[in-house]
Amino acid sequence: MTKEMDNILQRTEILIEALQYVKRFNNKIIVVKYGGSAMIDEKMEKSVIQDVALLKSVGFKPIIVHGGGKEISNWVEKIGKKIEFVEGLRVTDKETMEIAEMVLNKVNKGLVQKLEEFGVNAVGISGKDGSLLKAERKCLNGLDLGYVGEITQVNPQLLYGLLEKGFLPVVAPIGTDDEFESYNINGDDAACAVAKALNAEKLTFLTDIEGVLKDPADKSTLISELMVEEAKKLIEDGIVNGGMLPKINSCIDAIENGVSRVHIIDGTIAHCLLLEIFTNKGIGTAILASSESRFDV
Amino acid sequence: MTKEMDNILQRTEILIEALQYVKRFNNKIIVVKYGGSAMIDEKMEKSVIQDVALLKSVGFKPIIVHGGGKEISNWVEKIGKKIEFVEGLRVTDKETMEIAEMVLNKVNKGLVQKLEEFGVNAVGISGKDGSLLKAERKCLNGLDLGYVGEITQVNPQLLYGLLEKGFLPVVAPIGTDDEFESYNINGDDAACAVAKALNAEKLTFLTDIEGVLKDPADKSTLISELMVEEAKKLIEDGIVNGGMLPKINSCIDAIENGVSRVHIIDGTIAHCLLLEIFTNKGIGTAILASSESRFDV
Amino acid sequence: MTKEMDNILQRTEILIEALQYVKRFNNKIIVVKYGGSAMIDEKMEKSVIQDVALLKSVGFKPIIVHGGGKEISNWVEKIGKKIEFVEGLRVTDKETMEIAEMVLNKVNKGLVQKLEEFGVNAVGISGKDGSLLKAERKCLNGLDLGYVGEITQVNPQLLYGLLEKGFLPVVAPIGTDDEFESYNINGDDAACAVAKALNAEKLTFLTDIEGVLKDPADKSTLISELMVEEAKKLIEDGIVNGGMLPKINSCIDAIENGVSRVHIIDGTIAHCLLLEIFTNKGIGTAILASSESRFDV
Amino acid sequence: MTKEMDNILQRTEILIEALQYVKRFNNKIIVVKYGGSAMIDEKMEKSVIQDVALLKSVGFKPIIVHGGGKEISNWVEKIGKKIEFVEGLRVTDKETMEIAEMVLNKVNKGLVQKLEEFGVNAVGISGKDGSLLKAERKCLNGLDLGYVGEITQVNPQLLYGLLEKGFLPVVAPIGTDDEFESYNINGDDAACAVAKALNAEKLTFLTDIEGVLKDPADKSTLISELMVEEAKKLIEDGIVNGGMLPKINSCIDAIENGVSRVHIIDGTIAHCLLLEIFTNKGIGTAILASSESRFDV
Amino acid sequence: MTKEMDNILQRTEILIEALQYVKRFNNKIIVVKYGGSAMIDEKMEKSVIQDVALLKSVGFKPIIVHGGGKEISNWVEKIGKKIEFVEGLRVTDKETMEIAEMVLNKVNKGLVQKLEEFGVNAVGISGKDGSLLKAERKCLNGLDLGYVGEITQVNPQLLYGLLEKGFLPVVAPIGTDDEFESYNINGDDAACAVAKALNAEKLTFLTDIEGVLKDPADKSTLISELMVEEAKKLIEDGIVNGGMLPKINSCIDAIENGVSRVHIIDGTIAHCLLLEIFTNKGIGTAILASSESRFDV
Amino acid sequence: MTKEMDNILQRTEILIEALQYVKRFNNKIIVVKYGGSAMIDEKMEKSVIQDVALLKSVGFKPIIVHGGGKEISNWVEKIGKKIEFVEGLRVTDKETMEIAEMVLNKVNKGLVQKLEEFGVNAVGISGKDGSLLKAERKCLNGLDLGYVGEITQVNPQLLYGLLEKGFLPVVAPIGTDDEFESYNINGDDAACAVAKALNAEKLTFLTDIEGVLKDPADKSTLISELMVEEAKKLIEDGIVNGGMLPKINSCIDAIENGVSRVHIIDGTIAHCLLLEIFTNKGIGTAILASSESRFDV
Repeated sequence: MTKEMDNILQRTEILIEALQYVKRFNNKIIVVKYGGSAMIDEKMEKSVIQDVALLKSVGFKPIIVHGGGKEISNWVEKIGKKIEFVEGLRVTDKETMEIAEMVLNKVNKGLVQKLEEFGVNAVGISGKDGSLLKAERKCLNGLDLGYVGEITQVNPQLLYGLLEKGFLPVVAPIGTDDEFESYNINGDDAACAVAKALNAEKLTFLTDIEGVLKDPADKSTLISELMVEEAKKLIEDGIVNGGMLPKINSCIDAIENGVSRVHIIDGTIAHCLLLEIFTNKGIGTAILASSESRFDV
Repeated sequence: MTKEMDNILQRTEILIEALQYVKRFNNKIIVVKYGGSAMIDEKMEKSVIQDVALLKSVGFKPIIVHGGGKEISNWVEKIGKKIEFVEGLRVTDKETMEIAEMVLNKVNKGLVQKLEEFGVNAVGISGKDGSLLKAERKCLNGLDLGYVGEITQVNPQLLYGLLEKGFLPVVAPIGTDDEFESYNINGDDAACAVAKALNAEKLTFLTDIEGVLKDPADKSTLISELMVEEAKKLIEDGIVNGGMLPKINSCIDAIENGVSRVHIIDGTIAHCLLLEIFTNKGIGTAILASSESRFDV
Repeated sequence: MTKEMDNILQRTEILIEALQYVKRFNNKIIVVKYGGSAMIDEKMEKSVIQDVALLKSVGFKPIIVHGGGKEISNWVEKIGKKIEFVEGLRVTDKETMEIAEMVLNKVNKGLVQKLEEFGVNAVGISGKDGSLLKAERKCLNGLDLGYVGEITQVNPQLLYGLLEKGFLPVVAPIGTDDEFESYNINGDDAACAVAKALNAEKLTFLTDIEGVLKDPADKSTLISELMVEEAKKLIEDGIVNGGMLPKINSCIDAIENGVSRVHIIDGTIAHCLLLEIFTNKGIGTAILASSESRFDV
Repeated sequence: MTKEMDNILQRTEILIEALQYVKRFNNKIIVVKYGGSAMIDEKMEKSVIQDVALLKSVGFKPIIVHGGGKEISNWVEKIGKKIEFVEGLRVTDKETMEIAEMVLNKVNKGLVQKLEEFGVNAVGISGKDGSLLKAERKCLNGLDLGYVGEITQVNPQLLYGLLEKGFLPVVAPIGTDDEFESYNINGDDAACAVAKALNAEKLTFLTDIEGVLKDPADKSTLISELMVEEAKKLIEDGIVNGGMLPKINSCIDAIENGVSRVHIIDGTIAHCLLLEIFTNKGIGTAILASSESRFDV
Repeated sequence: MTKEMDNILQRTEILIEALQYVKRFNNKIIVVKYGGSAMIDEKMEKSVIQDVALLKSVGFKPIIVHGGGKEISNWVEKIGKKIEFVEGLRVTDKETMEIAEMVLNKVNKGLVQKLEEFGVNAVGISGKDGSLLKAERKCLNGLDLGYVGEITQVNPQLLYGLLEKGFLPVVAPIGTDDEFESYNINGDDAACAVAKALNAEKLTFLTDIEGVLKDPADKSTLISELMVEEAKKLIEDGIVNGGMLPKINSCIDAIENGVSRVHIIDGTIAHCLLLEIFTNKGIGTAILASSESRFDV
Repeated sequence: MTKEMDNILQRTEILIEALQYVKRFNNKIIVVKYGGSAMIDEKMEKSVIQDVALLKSVGFKPIIVHGGGKEISNWVEKIGKKIEFVEGLRVTDKETMEIAEMVLNKVNKGLVQKLEEFGVNAVGISGKDGSLLKAERKCLNGLDLGYVGEITQVNPQLLYGLLEKGFLPVVAPIGTDDEFESYNINGDDAACAVAKALNAEKLTFLTDIEGVLKDPADKSTLISELMVEEAKKLIEDGIVNGGMLPKINSCIDAIENGVSRVHIIDGTIAHCLLLEIFTNKGIGTAILASSESRFDV
């Protein structure tokens, strides 16, 4: 067989594979949690934006939920405030909250701007718009962290309205409580809550790691596919721990509340979203409800 | 006639008057430019918010376009930058633009939050969302003011979509040019452009003055009603000048491009919007196309 | 505080109050039983017609059910017949029925004509049209009253059709039995049956009295608000009696069958309908299901 | 060929003929002017009602416009007034007009009642309802006939609304002028105006004569089909005259203004409507625009 | 009474009778099984086609299911194959099946062509299209008949789609099993299955016999109307037997599964369909669920 | 760069390329002319069927128009008839036409069957159904070829109806003239006529050759892209001739009548349709209106 023919065969195979996913996810809602390194490196950002634009153009309904991480700290320092963390959660006084919100909205509109550059009609909203995210003050072992919120309710009408009208929603994780006080909300939690409220087909976390590793020290031990039950076992056995723990718990929560499949993928790989969605092999770790093989979808 | 009956008579009269306007403006779009003192005083702000909420609840379709005025300066100073104005326009370098946008978005989401408190489903957007406001760098007598933009195009689909779905849009006056660079846009201009693009029934400027005065020194010389032709004459005669000049020009522009009626009213009078819209006498100055009397509506 | 400002304040208050009712009753069906003195005095009639026209113009869906009272007697006498009443009910032989129907239709089309003068698209129908009111011969202690009917069924399709198409229905209280014989029906009963069949928001009786009085001799003892339970107690205690008795029973019947609120108001007060509907204080007596305060609506 | 088979053949032929008309007139509007003897004889009335009910049930959209002829005179006499005619038009003072309207409404609701007996959802309206018929005082050679009106405008919305909702409209020929004064309108004129305003497929006059006769003294000279041009010639030649003249003029007017076909048929023949509409041969005289044969329809 | 009048009376009666059926069957689905002699004689064929076209034009929704009987044998012989039958069922080897399918499709498109000549938009399909008829190999007392199928499932979407778009479906009785092997299906069975799947109003078999006879030797013993219970009794008593047996069983099956009425009529009588459907007396035998008289419909 | 990463990069590139075409052709009509060798080899047939199924599943609207070529000859011989060709066109007497139609319908339903196997809802029709293809007898230099037709009109309603309802139409090239006589139509002509009538996005001919070659003897001279003007020049210069000539003329005709792009591709390459549609490089020759590069789509 000639090289040329071999090439054509491979191309055909990739096409057939990809087109089956186009068909499968038509009109399906895919929530992408965008954060971490993929957000800082400009080239990576562009690759993510392009992927999301492409997903939308072939008939999917993507929603981006983003964080603000490092930029918040930068701005807090800019105005001369000290940054304080308790168990990984930023202690957020009124002024910090004000800055956090400004930074998140800045990031939010920045993403909108870049999506528009790729020809996508995007709309940047926060959890305040249309009362999307209702929250309450988070309790952490009795410690007062200030304006750090926990989601109590999602009102998805605005998201449905924007999707129906053909806009791509970009969501900043800010919520209000019943007294309409503002709260900073963890981005992973917000993405998970939105995916659950909309019964999203997929929830994808773009992270700085390859996925779930059996041996965190050995990248070759990546788990491609994880049933909810197995994931719980990994937590029990202490294999999943540290920063990974709350993320895996979010995944389990999502799957148990109507989301079909959750992905943890390495946001620093160019076009990671396309590779995950349109190829059988995928990249990263997929968490799903039961032993239905991911390769059979 | 007893006091009680007199009271009833007056009440009836006000009711009949008001209900005729309810009927007249049903489903009509009313763009409210909100800025100046009415925005700083908390009590006044609450009165405006309540009025807008009421307008929406009786079947109107209000849209708020806001400015950010004094807060922008506050924040620029907070991070230690000097403020510079040329002919009333803020010189806006990249960093100032960044701050301006953050402040405008902050104001924007703050208004949304307060409208939600009054039970209104509001959505805060800027001119970036859905490419609402396209702009280009403003030229002022050859002077480079930096990121100060002039509107070149309005894409109203997002506004129509939100209105159709029952949301109240709150618009921050930021635009992008064809390279997706951000620009600060004058709030009055943005309100005027939006009103024209939507063929709004009304465009209402909440200002710090009573309206147009024949003799600026004498409040009793308020002009209740001004035909476009008369307004042009007042400009020619130099009676309208200073800060009032661009506003009146905006009014004339709006009327000549599809808006039925423009109002300049004193935003510091409690419930100024209701008084203007639901009473024959109104408050402030109405600019309209022709001699059709405002009292006959 | 100046008189002018005081005036503005009061005006604002009335406006806010009224607009809340506009919002509350948007698209709601309001059945108005129109009869008695309010029908005879031309000026009062005009005030009622204007109020109904205004209700329709601000988004309510009014339906008028009328009586024919004194005009029927006039015409019976005109052709030389003797009038006979048994326990307040007109003995109605075939010829009287024929006259009654002609008079009711005359009144009916007269109201239509006047509503059209106020720009309302009205349509005059009787219970025969679209088989709206099906009836049977009324039994009164074994006495034969002739063609006096009791409603057995309401077919509301015609009313729904007219409302949907934007017409205001005016209903003459005539019904037919299964043999398609015509019957004269009590106007209050017809209004009550129509309100129940349509689950009307309000049923309003325009009468010659101020409302329910604790002491019928003392107008200052007007009861503003009456729970169904209290109304039953007043009947039991004999405080409600005479001509008021059947009306109150109609009210109770309506409330217990899907109508939210019934009003008995003095039809001779100019613009009584507006005052009742758009002010917190109202006029006359409101009968409602439970202790939910009428002032909280 | 046996008698039985002959019978079947004939039956088949009638069926095929009739079904072609069912197809042809599906959803078409047919205005029936109902008056004269067919209205007085109870058996004839029943036959007409049944025909109209059947037309509606197979998909046509019939509208009845009726007169009141002899009953008006009866009632005028009943209350002791003298009847006066000028050139065939009743002199109508205010009181006579009042009686005329009452009688017409009585006839109107009577027809509704009988249609309901045949299971048809009918609605009786006059030209006042929905401002259907606007009129002005008729001038006849300078003579004042009082409240005799001439139609100036038809507002067909109510008729369209009722037809759309599946009701059969029955129209009493009463109109109002711009001051909302009532006028008695000639039934033929009203039917013609309604047919023109709705672009009816057919306008059918039920009369006391067989149709247009070449020799009025000889019934065998019935003209089955008359082109508009021929009809004009018959008028010119004086063959059509007397009471027939205005009717033929109405026919010509209708054809020249959008009605496809006008029929003058003998209302005293049982089921004349069915015979006219569903058989090739028809009965009476058909007036049509051009030489397209009626047998080809 | 003159002959002419007698004629008119009879005509009127037939019309009234027929129109009642037009009303009754509007938009109703009528499945016609077309086969036997009525298919071979060209004149009879034309009469059936015309009837079906007429049924469609007056608002019914006819569907034709046809057989191919004698033509299949002709073609099998043409290519020199021997024809073999077992218990009335054609033994169908692969080649015979191929020919049967070709002939059935030929008949199918031939009917389409003739319907188009009558102005009907017809579409010829087989049970393969849209997977309309799913089948399995028929077992007959252990004998292998080859590609003779029994229907296991009907997918009616294509039929609904064609009816909705105004096309008349013509169905050839071919089905496929789960391996997509083709099968010849009995035309009566196919018609019955389609009628059941669509809850047809009527299923009509055009046959070579008059209907069900009490005494097969005496045509005057035709049973006009047969309740399902009576039909079962006739089978039990052996009165229905031979070729009639499976047909009557199909009728019973249809009635017991949602079809309102089944007719067995003589397809060789001109316009038999019209006579059956539009006359009270009908022709042939009607099978129905209960004693509701066919004359009362 | 590792082999693995290289692999991922290539995969990503193919994906991005393919997804852009998915987006571009969403809901677009693609007419595929299926014939020649690709139809005879079972494996090739399967590959074509699979491709068409995939096109449909990702949102395209494919329509197959097929020929019957060699099978017609086989069957004509089977029944002992001699085959005759004049200038490449089969001389078609009545009997041959009958056979041709049977064979084409057989091929037609065979394709339906195979598409159903791939889960596609297909419907096989011929030009007779819904009067899709109207034709007349073809004149060839005065020679009588018999029942060989030329298309005179396309009635696309049935195709639109089937596409709207989600079915994939498979069309056999048979037409009828105004006397409803049947004609055999050239498959390429039928495909071209259908594509023009539906303003198809693409018309694709699956042939036995690689495309248009500059030097027919040298496959390396394949022309990837051909403007209409260039194609005309090639004809003029005699480079395109023989069997290719009518095909290229069809292509030019299609482009000049509303089809955006026509492809001539080698139907014997596995998955030729996918490769042509979803890759920039494509295979075969694309004919298009102007110099807009095919690589820029």
